[in-house]
Amino acid sequence: MRRGLLRSVRQCSLQGSIVSRNRRCLTSIPSGFTDSSPHVKFPPCAVSVSSPNAIDASALKVTKTSKPMELVPKDKLVFGRTFADHMLEVDWDSKKGWRAPVIRPFGDLSVSPAASVLHYALECFEGMKAYKDASGCVRLFRPALNMARFNHSLARMYMPAVDGPTFLSLLRELLLLDEHWIPEGDGYSLYIRPTAISTTRYLGVGAPEEVKLYCITSPVGPYYATGFKPISLWADTHHVRAWEGGTGDAKVGANYAIAIMPQMLAAQHGCSQVLWMNRDTASGAYNLTEVGSMNLFVLIKDAVTGRPQLITAPLTRADVLPGVTRASILELAESMDGVDVKEACLSLQDVAKASAEGRLMEIFGAGTAAVVAPVNSIKYADESGTVKTVNVPSGGDAGPTAKKLWATITDIQYGRVDHPWSVKL
Amino acid sequence: MRRGLLRSVRQCSLQGSIVSRNRRCLTSIPSGFTDSSPHVKFPPCAVSVSSPNAIDASALKVTKTSKPMELVPKDKLVFGRTFADHMLEVDWDSKKGWRAPVIRPFGDLSVSPAASVLHYALECFEGMKAYKDASGCVRLFRPALNMARFNHSLARMYMPAVDGPTFLSLLRELLLLDEHWIPEGDGYSLYIRPTAISTTRYLGVGAPEEVKLYCITSPVGPYYATGFKPISLWADTHHVRAWEGGTGDAKVGANYAIAIMPQMLAAQHGCSQVLWMNRDTASGAYNLTEVGSMNLFVLIKDAVTGRPQLITAPLTRADVLPGVTRASILELAESMDGVDVKEACLSLQDVAKASAEGRLMEIFGAGTAAVVAPVNSIKYADESGTVKTVNVPSGGDAGPTAKKLWATITDIQYGRVDHPWSVKL
Repeated sequence: MRRGLLRSVRQCSLQGSIVSRNRRCLTSIPSGFTDSSPHVKFPPCAVSVSSPNAIDASALKVTKTSKPMELVPKDKLVFGRTFADHMLEVDWDSKKGWRAPVIRPFGDLSVSPAASVLHYALECFEGMKAYKDASGCVRLFRPALNMARFNHSLARMYMPAVDGPTFLSLLRELLLLDEHWIPEGDGYSLYIRPTAISTTRYLGVGAPEEVKLYCITSPVGPYYATGFKPISLWADTHHVRAWEGGTGDAKVGANYAIAIMPQMLAAQHGCSQVLWMNRDTASGAYNLTEVGSMNLFVLIKDAVTGRPQLITAPLTRADVLPGVTRASILELAESMDGVDVKEACLSLQDVAKASAEGRLMEIFGAGTAAVVAPVNSIKYADESGTVKTVNVPSGGDAGPTAKKLWATITDIQYGRVDHPWSVKL
Repeated sequence: MRRGLLRSVRQCSLQGSIVSRNRRCLTSIPSGFTDSSPHVKFPPCAVSVSSPNAIDASALKVTKTSKPMELVPKDKLVFGRTFADHMLEVDWDSKKGWRAPVIRPFGDLSVSPAASVLHYALECFEGMKAYKDASGCVRLFRPALNMARFNHSLARMYMPAVDGPTFLSLLRELLLLDEHWIPEGDGYSLYIRPTAISTTRYLGVGAPEEVKLYCITSPVGPYYATGFKPISLWADTHHVRAWEGGTGDAKVGANYAIAIMPQMLAAQHGCSQVLWMNRDTASGAYNLTEVGSMNLFVLIKDAVTGRPQLITAPLTRADVLPGVTRASILELAESMDGVDVKEACLSLQDVAKASAEGRLMEIFGAGTAAVVAPVNSIKYADESGTVKTVNVPSGGDAGPTAKKLWATITDIQYGRVDHPWSVKL
């Protein structure tokens, strides 16, 4: 076991200065942490956990693997099945607070069968990616937003807050240690999964007393290796992913547990993803919220002005995840010509009407995995139970707006254009 | 490691016959498994998991602990903190199905940090109790209802079904092995926690490919050692436990994750539990659903007839857990004189009005832990934000109806009266 990391010296810029990568336990604030978005904001929580201390990144202990795993050939990568050699782990308990952070070989956790994560789903996570740019530097995309959301999720699970810059400095150590696990080339990346679970050995339904914060990484190939693959949606009128007063605006396990069985139902209807909706009991309208585990965007011509409007569900009801890709699309689209941007409730009925009137232009999901996922059709059962289909004009490909947004965002992520959203490690 | 259990011979009746407890791996259907309730019924699931096989109880492998833990003195028992010596474990995967069941010393599970239970809350559980009657026999209370609900929860999590009688025969082996962990005396019991988690090592949001079914037990003391302790409720208008189309009718971790932080908020308001409500957007009424992690009963005099009505939330919206105690109370109350029983929406406004008109009689929670938990007050913020309190007349004690139901149910659980709901092992 050794403290800190000894690495070959390589130069990358950080906050304008030049730092060498053989620094032990970087604790300064990584550049880009000043990033914020009006679309990833959370109200303060009414109650919060006090912790006896904060995470001390300088106490990091690193145990390198003695048995490095074999790299999986790039063309064999499957999302979320392969993991890099090391993982980060920081334990907390309500009495002693955070222990020294540990980087150690990827491997099983020893969890009590009474741990409340296994009974009461006291768990939350983030999804991020590390990209290698053409000059070999490692980049993150808007990590400050992930950290803001992670803390919102932690608070919702009544878990202690994690200082964003501290976590990112530890993540940096993990990524640089496993840098050879970040596949090179367009579309390739290392998926990053910060996770927090309650390891509290108590069957009472109560506040977490012991928490494990950890982070694993998984190399992934391009989502669209051979061009966009549009998805078909089953508009589920029976199952609801999230609702006002629930946890839909936090990245917690609960939102996903609910979604698996309906996803199988969508497959039974020949569709690849669920179109999630919330019924407005007053009007009977099914308001679109998300698609699969992505945010949803609809491009529609306004019935009066004929101007294209890019519409996504608002965050006001807290039944939609404040996605980092969602926020970025909203910010980028606001400066695009010829498109109005709206966060507004849009119902299945609205979309069907727009389609019938020739006003429906594009539909796409937005998330970290795919950036944009074009939708080619929506199937739904009408009031009589008859299955109907709304076809999206852009059909077998992504529409021009989705394509433009995808290109802009991936150019930033891979450092092909300079942009403050991309943070070099 | 030995197959089956060798036990001292002791006689208890099972389905009218006399069986000796040195039977190895009982696979016959325990008595009481024909039990059913109109209040614990589930519609068939639209999609379900196919398993290559069913659990084979005769393949049970038992490894006894070599280091038995010291029994905790009865007066030191705290719910859910102490665990008996052994646990049951059965692994499943989608290719090979169920493996041989194992009873082994209580101890940690080895879980991949990528296991989907830790990310997507693919988990569900049951809560039951084993009681020792005056003649030393071990009894369960309506276990068939727990098994029916467990299977509903498993299906909602897209996990394979578990044959109820098979599971109960394995549970019987576990309980007889740890029989000395079942504390004797009124109010004492061994809490039983059947659990299923997805151990699938995959970060994709998908169907469980590997599942671990397990069962741990925890000795518990009387909930009311020194008389009933009424609880105070905070009527939370911001947080919602469950909603139509969600998972409120299944015993899954997701329903509890949502509840912890609001529970801390209730404490901040000086209340011991959350009163969960679902707002009817059309009328604005806050319909009462549950209290803490219990079902809720309100005894109220009808405004017209003046007759007492025992009211609990209906199961029709699937936002309420079909509790075994709830079902039993409904069935018992239906044959009580002088009380009408109703499954109906009752709002906070209804309760406040009844209180103002002197028609509110009793409020109590109902669940496995406490059987009944009398409520002495409800605090809520009115439309202007002013905190108001509804006091329950029965005040510092349980009301006569709650007391009568509690006595009837505990008499059955401890075998003081003969009743088909109590199943001897």
